[in-house]
Amino acid sequence: MHDFLSIHPAVAAALRANQPVVALESTLISHGLPHPANVETALALEAAVRAAGALPATVAVLDGRIRVGLEAEDLERLAQPGVRKVSRRDLPLVLASGADGATTVAATMIAAELAGISVFATGGIGGVHRGVETTLDISADLEELSQTDVAVVCAGAKAILDLQKTLEYLETKGVPVIGFGTDRFPAFYTASLPLPVDGRVDSADDAARMLRAKWQLGLKGGVVIGVPIPEEAALDAEAVEAAIRQAVDEAENQGVRGKELTPFLLKRLEELTGGASLAANRALLLNNARVAGQIAVAYARQKA
Amino acid sequence: MHDFLSIHPAVAAALRANQPVVALESTLISHGLPHPANVETALALEAAVRAAGALPATVAVLDGRIRVGLEAEDLERLAQPGVRKVSRRDLPLVLASGADGATTVAATMIAAELAGISVFATGGIGGVHRGVETTLDISADLEELSQTDVAVVCAGAKAILDLQKTLEYLETKGVPVIGFGTDRFPAFYTASLPLPVDGRVDSADDAARMLRAKWQLGLKGGVVIGVPIPEEAALDAEAVEAAIRQAVDEAENQGVRGKELTPFLLKRLEELTGGASLAANRALLLNNARVAGQIAVAYARQKA
Amino acid sequence: MHDFLSIHPAVAAALRANQPVVALESTLISHGLPHPANVETALALEAAVRAAGALPATVAVLDGRIRVGLEAEDLERLAQPGVRKVSRRDLPLVLASGADGATTVAATMIAAELAGISVFATGGIGGVHRGVETTLDISADLEELSQTDVAVVCAGAKAILDLQKTLEYLETKGVPVIGFGTDRFPAFYTASLPLPVDGRVDSADDAARMLRAKWQLGLKGGVVIGVPIPEEAALDAEAVEAAIRQAVDEAENQGVRGKELTPFLLKRLEELTGGASLAANRALLLNNARVAGQIAVAYARQKA
Ligand SMILES: [Mn+2]
Ligand SMILES: [Mn+2]
Ligand SMILES: [Mn+2]
Repeated sequence: MHDFLSIHPAVAAALRANQPVVALESTLISHGLPHPANVETALALEAAVRAAGALPATVAVLDGRIRVGLEAEDLERLAQPGVRKVSRRDLPLVLASGADGATTVAATMIAAELAGISVFATGGIGGVHRGVETTLDISADLEELSQTDVAVVCAGAKAILDLQKTLEYLETKGVPVIGFGTDRFPAFYTASLPLPVDGRVDSADDAARMLRAKWQLGLKGGVVIGVPIPEEAALDAEAVEAAIRQAVDEAENQGVRGKELTPFLLKRLEELTGGASLAANRALLLNNARVAGQIAVAYARQKA
Repeated sequence: MHDFLSIHPAVAAALRANQPVVALESTLISHGLPHPANVETALALEAAVRAAGALPATVAVLDGRIRVGLEAEDLERLAQPGVRKVSRRDLPLVLASGADGATTVAATMIAAELAGISVFATGGIGGVHRGVETTLDISADLEELSQTDVAVVCAGAKAILDLQKTLEYLETKGVPVIGFGTDRFPAFYTASLPLPVDGRVDSADDAARMLRAKWQLGLKGGVVIGVPIPEEAALDAEAVEAAIRQAVDEAENQGVRGKELTPFLLKRLEELTGGASLAANRALLLNNARVAGQIAVAYARQKA
Repeated sequence: MHDFLSIHPAVAAALRANQPVVALESTLISHGLPHPANVETALALEAAVRAAGALPATVAVLDGRIRVGLEAEDLERLAQPGVRKVSRRDLPLVLASGADGATTVAATMIAAELAGISVFATGGIGGVHRGVETTLDISADLEELSQTDVAVVCAGAKAILDLQKTLEYLETKGVPVIGFGTDRFPAFYTASLPLPVDGRVDSADDAARMLRAKWQLGLKGGVVIGVPIPEEAALDAEAVEAAIRQAVDEAENQGVRGKELTPFLLKRLEELTGGASLAANRALLLNNARVAGQIAVAYARQKA
């Protein structure tokens, strides 16, 4: 395994000592946010994890090796144009060819599990795309959640998706979707949450206890821990929905699909909201990193 | 594992001695049948398994532990209102929070595999819901069948489902669907069976031999063993279908969905058929328990 | 396992000595090609694998045992009418009942993995059927690719399928789809390739390196290595598409579905193209066997 996986010494030492570690993804650096907000946000997420008492381990592929735990210079490198977005299916070729890559939720989960990290913070998971009945476009993140033992702390699924169908898919796959301090499914940018979840925890300790029960019983796969966006950062639900609908229409008319679709929609959304979506995205990311840090701390304490 | 799983001493002893055991589910007690028919039926199913020469092990979650093998007083407790329906996704939180729960087909399969029980009797599996193209509503039972090594003896899938699509889904997942004494897929309440299955066995011995081949080869996952309802208990196919269509329409108009959908449809069906669906349900359950007992006996004998 | 699996002594010896072996399927013999083209083609495929420096191991079920590596007389036996098509779900009953069977892509992958063979050549994989939104008809080959560690060298998916949706499904499942000498997804009979793939290799060595990275990292599942049909054997894309549409319409009108669908469509296509589809099928099969042999040689060399 060592040919293709490299764990930062500080991360490896923390894991050996059963100290809390939180994985972070790199697609937000290479594809999710514009420069220089991307590097600044990546550093701020690491700081938020540290402030909660855990060690951050940002994940990416560099020179054909999965790297778990990056230096600031690595983050800058990932912020350069042209870094490939790497999901589960892309890993073999990117590794074999010695290339760089920014890891999606799915690929970051794989790396976290390989390294032994149980908690991962991101903005929102991928899911079932709007119009799936004609495209069958469903993110590999959902399949990853059904098989890889990592808790994903997020503000729900990306708002550009069909949230109801994303929840149905996760139910079919047996993936727990848990509200953190809420019994509704977080709706990414907005504070109005139309859809229920089936479980709720109100503390990092309770979240950690649930993870412990799941994996101690041998129930394979991840958990979605949904954290609503802080109220002061939330956008207006109707305005966001209108902007999303417009962006989705444009993508359809311009024939944007496949792996280009999500970056296109996020970029258009930022333009259509006059940058408000970017600020909201940054706020929820920081909040998720903080909560993930707390859960990692509680999980490590319970394991001890 | 012992924190969250408790196997009844008699069941544990039987399994150690390679004696036949049949798992039974508890959703039918808490959500499938009205009181007091539910407790009576649960006891009658246990008796039917015993009459076939096997030991029954009804499964539920009590006080945050999966229990395999229950006492009569446990069955009464599960018949009280408010017991939660627990599928794969619900297990972690229900266990961690110390609550009670009635196990679905999926969760009962998980418990059976953890305990080492290979045969499980139920009424009908969950499946692909009618209208799936707009809802993506597909039961977690189907995914469980693709990964958990338990034979599910049933009268096919619940009649409220889209049976054709349920069979397609199982085919994609590589799950054998076998007719017991028939080469048609049992249609739950009715004796007219419009859909073919791909395999047929005509004895408990042949069923057991097939299970032995599957798991000896390391082919993960379950098998659906479909047993038609006894002819004398079967309902008229057209009348049942009309009642189901009406119940499905009502659910749609009233916005009933998610985990409330199946209990709602079964209840309306009982009302619309003047209780006939309840009697048929009970008859097929008893028949399935009997056949499952026979298969468990044959399987234990072949393993010896 | 020995009750149900039998590896030809020459194949077993080669595998022990880390020498290159290529698995071949038998559905093309029993259901894919007419007699005597089927036996001739099966022998020619074995010769093409040998010419590339690897040992062929054609897979089938005979007398209730999976056989890996067949004699010429076995191929003749599989060419007789009435041999059952065996996919993952069919294996348990066919093995338990001592019958014969022709293995699909899924079942051949299972046998290859059990035997320890990493490379498999076929014509085209199964996939998402046209009209899936009303039928949910999706080949078990796609699920097999998500879980079984075998590289499938093919000319893409069978042309009768919805190729775009097949690619989406594989993406969701995290299965790498790699072009061999192309960055487009091979379109079976034709040289015009409308759909992109996400990875490209230009040599057997690069393909082998990618496989090594995948499985060394513990990433379960297969890889689709798509090889375009040799240009001189390619059919006209529009003519093929018109014939496929007609065949699909006929199948729908005649109610052909389930496991009968693919053989029906292939047969009609042969008739509608005046046999041209058969010649093209044979040409791409031979080409795939040759490339698979090269990849197996490179993979064995790298492992040494
Ligand atoms: Mn996609
Ligand atoms: Mn559902
Ligand atoms: Mn099919």
